[in-house]
Amino acid sequence: MNKYSKNLAKIISFANDIIDLKIPKKPDNLYGPIIHMASKKGKQVRGVLALLSYDAFSGDIQELKELVLAIETLHNFTLIHDDVMDNAMIRRGIDTINKKWSSNQAILSGDVLMMYAYHHILSSKLIEKSVLKQFTNTAISICEGQQLDCDFQTMKNVSMDEYFKMIQGKTSALIEFSLTAPAAIANTGHGNLNLMKCIGDCLGKLFQIQDDYLDLYGNQSMIGKVIGGDIYEKKKTFLYISAFRRLPLSKQELLEEIYQSDSKEKLGKIKAIYDSVDVKNYVNQYIQTLNQELVDLINQLDINEQKKITLLEFLELLLYRNS
Amino acid sequence: MNKYSKNLAKIISFANDIIDLKIPKKPDNLYGPIIHMASKKGKQVRGVLALLSYDAFSGDIQELKELVLAIETLHNFTLIHDDVMDNAMIRRGIDTINKKWSSNQAILSGDVLMMYAYHHILSSKLIEKSVLKQFTNTAISICEGQQLDCDFQTMKNVSMDEYFKMIQGKTSALIEFSLTAPAAIANTGHGNLNLMKCIGDCLGKLFQIQDDYLDLYGNQSMIGKVIGGDIYEKKKTFLYISAFRRLPLSKQELLEEIYQSDSKEKLGKIKAIYDSVDVKNYVNQYIQTLNQELVDLINQLDINEQKKITLLEFLELLLYRNS
Repeated sequence: MNKYSKNLAKIISFANDIIDLKIPKKPDNLYGPIIHMASKKGKQVRGVLALLSYDAFSGDIQELKELVLAIETLHNFTLIHDDVMDNAMIRRGIDTINKKWSSNQAILSGDVLMMYAYHHILSSKLIEKSVLKQFTNTAISICEGQQLDCDFQTMKNVSMDEYFKMIQGKTSALIEFSLTAPAAIANTGHGNLNLMKCIGDCLGKLFQIQDDYLDLYGNQSMIGKVIGGDIYEKKKTFLYISAFRRLPLSKQELLEEIYQSDSKEKLGKIKAIYDSVDVKNYVNQYIQTLNQELVDLINQLDINEQKKITLLEFLELLLYRNS
Repeated sequence: MNKYSKNLAKIISFANDIIDLKIPKKPDNLYGPIIHMASKKGKQVRGVLALLSYDAFSGDIQELKELVLAIETLHNFTLIHDDVMDNAMIRRGIDTINKKWSSNQAILSGDVLMMYAYHHILSSKLIEKSVLKQFTNTAISICEGQQLDCDFQTMKNVSMDEYFKMIQGKTSALIEFSLTAPAAIANTGHGNLNLMKCIGDCLGKLFQIQDDYLDLYGNQSMIGKVIGGDIYEKKKTFLYISAFRRLPLSKQELLEEIYQSDSKEKLGKIKAIYDSVDVKNYVNQYIQTLNQELVDLINQLDINEQKKITLLEFLELLLYRNS
C-alpha cells in the first residue's frame, strides 16, 4: 500500500471495503454463482474512478458508496453475460459461472445482478432522476457496443472508426459515467464536466486497447484469462486492425483468412504476422499518446493541484497495469 | 370490440395503441430480434391491469403511458430470457429469438430490453423513487421465482407451498406491481392499496395455474406454444403437484419416474395418469375458487360501482382465456 500517496491509498482502500456487491444468499443457486464470482475481486477501476472524481470536486467519498456499488455491480453483470456469449471458461483466474454452473445459470444470475445495480443506485440519497437516466443510457450503450463487438466476429475486417464506435459503448460509456456522474453530483461547472467527459472517453480507449494488448502479450496467471482468447473468438481488436492497416495489400488477405479460421494453430501464426509489422511496438506507442492526451486533459481541470496529482498517480498505475 | 363495455374497450384499445415497446432500430442485430418479437403482440394483461387500476382510482389513463410501457417491456424481457433457458422454439406462434437468431443474441437483446424498461419508467413524470424501488424489487422477485422454477426441474417433487412461493415471484410479483403501483400513484388509501395487493397475488395464482392448464389442455394454434412443453421440460406445474397428491402412494413413484425421464412418449403417459385422478376437473374447480375469491376482493374495494363492473368484466375475460 505504501507505493501510493496517502490520498490515493485512502480511496483505493475505501473502494475495497465497500465493493462486496451486497447480495442476499437465497435462493442459493441464484446468488451462489455471484458470490463465487465476487470471491475474486476485480480491479475496481470504475469504482475508484468514481471516488477520485467525487474527491476531486470536494465531495465526501463516504456519500458515494451506493453509486460505486451500482457501477461495479453493473460492470460485473456485463462480465457474466459476456462470458456466456464468448464461451469463456476462466475469469480472474477462477471458473466462469457458465463453466462452473451452466449458461442458463449465468444468464439468470446475471439478470438479477443487473437489477441489484438499480437497487444500489436507488438506495443513494444523492441520486436524482437525471443520474438514473444517465445510468440507464450507459447500460444501453454497453449493450450496443457489445452487439457491435459480436457483429465484428463474423466480419473479415472493420475500420478503425467502427472499432472506436464499438469501444465507445462497450468500454468508454461506463468509465465516462463513473467520472461524470460524481462530478455532476458534486455540482462542478460545465468546463470541468466536459473535461471529465473527454477524460472518460480517452481513458476508455486506453483501457480497451490495453485489454486487447494484454489478451495476447499479457501473462495468463496475471490477467486470469486464457491468452489469445480474442484471436480464437475472432474479435476485431486494436491489434488486428492495426496489423491489417500496416500490412502490404498482398498479405492482408492471408491475415483475414487465418484469423477467421478455426485452426488450433492460429495463435502462433497470427502472432508472427503481428510481429512482422511490429504491432506490439506500434500499440505501445499509441497507448503512450493516449496517456499524454489524458495528462493534458487532467491538467486543464479547474481543481486543487493536489487532486490533480492523485488523478495522475492513478492514471500512471493504470498505464503500467498487467492485469 | 363490441363484446366489451365502453369503458373496458377504451382501456384495451389504449393499451394496444401505446404498447409497441418503442425501441430504436440500430444496431440492426440488437433491436431486430425485439422488433420481430413485438410483431406479435401478447395479451398485454399486465398493461391493461395497470390502466384498469389507475382508472378505478380516478386517474387519467393518458398519464400512465410510460409506466405501462415499462411493465410490458420488463415482461417481454423475461420471456426472451426464459425462452433461452427453456430452449423454447416458438412463442406467440412465431420463432423465438433463440431459434431464429441464437441464444447469444437472445441474451443481449433481452438485456437491452430490460434497460429500456427502466428508460420508459424514468420517462414518466408521475414516478417517484418509491415506485422505482418497487419496480426493481419486482424484477428481483421475478428472477428469484424463475430460479425456483429451474431448481424444481431437477427435483422429483415439490410441495404446494414451494410451488406457490415460486409463482409468487415468477408471476404474481409483476401482476401485483401492475395493480398496486398505479393505485399508489393515484394516492388511494391504505385499505384499497392492501386489497389491490391481495387481488394481484390471487390473480397471479389464477393466471399461472391457467398457464399450466393451457400448456397441456390448450390448443396449440391458440396458445402459440408447443403443447406439453412443461412436461418435456420437467416443470413442476400445478397439474403435476395436484396429480401427485391425488395419486395413491403406490402410483406416485411411477409418475415421478416418467415425468423425470426423457422419453419421447411421456406426454401421453402423463396425460393418462392425470386423467386417472381427474386432474383436469380438479384444476378447473380450483380456478373457479380463486375466481370467486377475486370477485369478493374486488367487491370490497372502496371505488365507484361502475369501475368495479369494469374490473369484474376484465376478470371474466381472463377466466375464459384460451391463450
